[in-house]
Amino acid sequence: MKLSQFFLPTLKEVPSDAQIASHRLMLRAGMIRQTSAGIYAWLPLGLRVLRRIEQIVREEQNRAGAIELLMPTIQSADLWRESGRYDDYGDEMLRITDRHQRDMLFGPTNEEMITDIFRHAVRSYRDLPRNLYHIQWKFRDEIRPRFGVMRGREFLMKDAYSFDLDAAGARRSYNRMFVAYLKSFARMGLKAIPMAADTGPIGGDLSHEFIILAETGESEVFCHADYLARDWAGDVDYEADLQPLIDGLTALYAATDEKHDAAKFAAEVPEDKRRSARGIEVGHIFYFGTKYSEPMGAVVAGPDGNDIAVEMGSYGIGVSRLVGAIIEASHDDNGIIWPASVAPFDLGLINLKPGDDTVDEQCALLYAQLQAAGRDVLYDDRDERAGAKFATMDLIGLPWQLIVGPKGVKAGTVELKNRATGERLELPPAAAIERLLA
Amino acid sequence: MKLSQFFLPTLKEVPSDAQIASHRLMLRAGMIRQTSAGIYAWLPLGLRVLRRIEQIVREEQNRAGAIELLMPTIQSADLWRESGRYDDYGDEMLRITDRHQRDMLFGPTNEEMITDIFRHAVRSYRDLPRNLYHIQWKFRDEIRPRFGVMRGREFLMKDAYSFDLDAAGARRSYNRMFVAYLKSFARMGLKAIPMAADTGPIGGDLSHEFIILAETGESEVFCHADYLARDWAGDVDYEADLQPLIDGLTALYAATDEKHDAAKFAAEVPEDKRRSARGIEVGHIFYFGTKYSEPMGAVVAGPDGNDIAVEMGSYGIGVSRLVGAIIEASHDDNGIIWPASVAPFDLGLINLKPGDDTVDEQCALLYAQLQAAGRDVLYDDRDERAGAKFATMDLIGLPWQLIVGPKGVKAGTVELKNRATGERLELPPAAAIERLLA
Repeated sequence: MKLSQFFLPTLKEVPSDAQIASHRLMLRAGMIRQTSAGIYAWLPLGLRVLRRIEQIVREEQNRAGAIELLMPTIQSADLWRESGRYDDYGDEMLRITDRHQRDMLFGPTNEEMITDIFRHAVRSYRDLPRNLYHIQWKFRDEIRPRFGVMRGREFLMKDAYSFDLDAAGARRSYNRMFVAYLKSFARMGLKAIPMAADTGPIGGDLSHEFIILAETGESEVFCHADYLARDWAGDVDYEADLQPLIDGLTALYAATDEKHDAAKFAAEVPEDKRRSARGIEVGHIFYFGTKYSEPMGAVVAGPDGNDIAVEMGSYGIGVSRLVGAIIEASHDDNGIIWPASVAPFDLGLINLKPGDDTVDEQCALLYAQLQAAGRDVLYDDRDERAGAKFATMDLIGLPWQLIVGPKGVKAGTVELKNRATGERLELPPAAAIERLLA
Repeated sequence: MKLSQFFLPTLKEVPSDAQIASHRLMLRAGMIRQTSAGIYAWLPLGLRVLRRIEQIVREEQNRAGAIELLMPTIQSADLWRESGRYDDYGDEMLRITDRHQRDMLFGPTNEEMITDIFRHAVRSYRDLPRNLYHIQWKFRDEIRPRFGVMRGREFLMKDAYSFDLDAAGARRSYNRMFVAYLKSFARMGLKAIPMAADTGPIGGDLSHEFIILAETGESEVFCHADYLARDWAGDVDYEADLQPLIDGLTALYAATDEKHDAAKFAAEVPEDKRRSARGIEVGHIFYFGTKYSEPMGAVVAGPDGNDIAVEMGSYGIGVSRLVGAIIEASHDDNGIIWPASVAPFDLGLINLKPGDDTVDEQCALLYAQLQAAGRDVLYDDRDERAGAKFATMDLIGLPWQLIVGPKGVKAGTVELKNRATGERLELPPAAAIERLLA
């Protein structure tokens, strides 16, 4: 993509109402624009990151055996009356009346709707287990939306729902999501720590939040320092019993402030390993048994022919929130530093002297070679000062910058800069390509 | 994907309230489920088709130089008051009041919002032309939603918006979209005919609808029969002047009933070439000049430094509607017949005797080989009668069926069935693979 033809409205001023780094940087880098309080348009650069995160989440959900569908944003209030949550949910639910005076709402979550779909589709225990998920825009009418996409009103969430015949099966489904979450966040370059959590308005017996540590986190968390040294990646056999793995992963102390037990923390964690920090929730999983299936009649015929209310869990990842969370975890004074797995482009190609034939030719050649090799390149071909180009590239945080100027072209070199480390190399163009494609 | 682990709730009964083939077939094939009047959940099979259509639209938009972003579903009423459309739009607009008593709405289209984004981002004529698009859920509160996804209330639309310095530039942008639309529909196996159209509530001077012919179309259309023999595919240079191409493409008579001129039709079209038929609108493009930029102050500094209100057009494709439209154009008594380009899977693999070791092994081998070659396979490994399996495969309409039974395995053959032609071939497994990968 040539920057001269792209749509990247970066801001020079630091927006005064943006209190945290991710919000400031997303506005400055032209990733988002607020269209109403807590509601954002995703400009082209931001949308690219959002889609890459969404795709990682999708791949890991599929790998864990979950099946994608897509539920609508607008729901009937009647379903929520069946579960009893319509009155409970309060002012955060965006309530709507349609032209026929029917009560509708913009879904903040989908337990009721998926239970309704399930009960009309599945009749037999032989069709279990199932885990159905979607990635869809939700709305929660926050009283004070703030922190940009971290606490917006319209937000993109992946929510999965598992259906099992019994509690043991439900635990297996829960465990699969638990592991899939760790793998998803690890692929995004995040160290997400699973912490026992309260269940809140979703309800249920068992729940974990996945928390990343960042100074601007919304809540205080407490954990054993060894969590931060863990590598959560690695292959997993989802058909195996995952309980021993999860027991190992959760053996050390980690708790949100709601669940924190100071005495236990002191007893279990050596003093030099105790960490208290601010945390950002990026995922939340719940096992809630028959809380929805019972009142809504989501039953299957069991092996003996008798109806059994299915055991359910739900599993959320804040896809749009993750864009902000990754920036909170990875930026410096000059801008964003994207992990390669979610970067909006693989690299930026900077032409220091557009109009100079030799530089233009060298850039055109590199651009074509890198694109042919499948790399997503943002080519800054604008007629701008070098300083402005460097500042823009640092701000938007692509992993690599390939810099081409008249002196280098004369000497047969280009410059390759690593955004994260700041390392700069003078190389012949072919060597730079080799390095970028390695 | 193994069907035993998929979520495909097919219906045996023909739903009584579904009046047209696509609605009946989408319900029967387990592609969608209605969750409220005119609002549908996209079940896994339906979502796969929706995503493939969306991706074709995206690729052709990108190829034509449009840039993707994503605007939110919920908009502020204030923007619509600026353009004067808030009061005009009527009951089809889903109006919402948030917890702070602010007037909001679920966007039925995005002229106002994109104009707002543009006016805050672009200041100079040098940043023109631009064409920005998104693919997002819209809501129109139809008084009588019907025909399934063909006239639903919540629907997925691609809408693009072009910004140019003058009318000639705007015409070039219009022409690029015109050609991109013909290419998009052709890739989906549709013969879409461009017809001069009224502009309706979008407004403007120039407009074309893209219409496919189907018995269940919502309106009557009139055209020269030669349109139906045209091949709209083929490469296009979007940098070239497309006007001569478009003049050629629109030289023959074609009009919706609103624009139909019986005398002109009779004069221009030989009697044996006159076609009147029902048509389904799958795309609609508009050039409306400064209708929004003028009242909303979307101006750029021109070459002489004076402000110029930008010339705009908008370009819509009904992505979710296309799923129904393609079925209307391609089905038979047994079910759907997907064009390969939008099929939810490339083929169905039918195991006629699960539990028979030799058949299971042969199926497992074919399944692995086809997946390794990048084919999306739906493997019917269920313990079901052969008749039920054939009926399901015909209903869901995958382009190919690969049928493996004990007799064939003994004889060293499998059966390959083409869904569209009904042609059946007995082949050695390796030859079947070769045919499928050709």
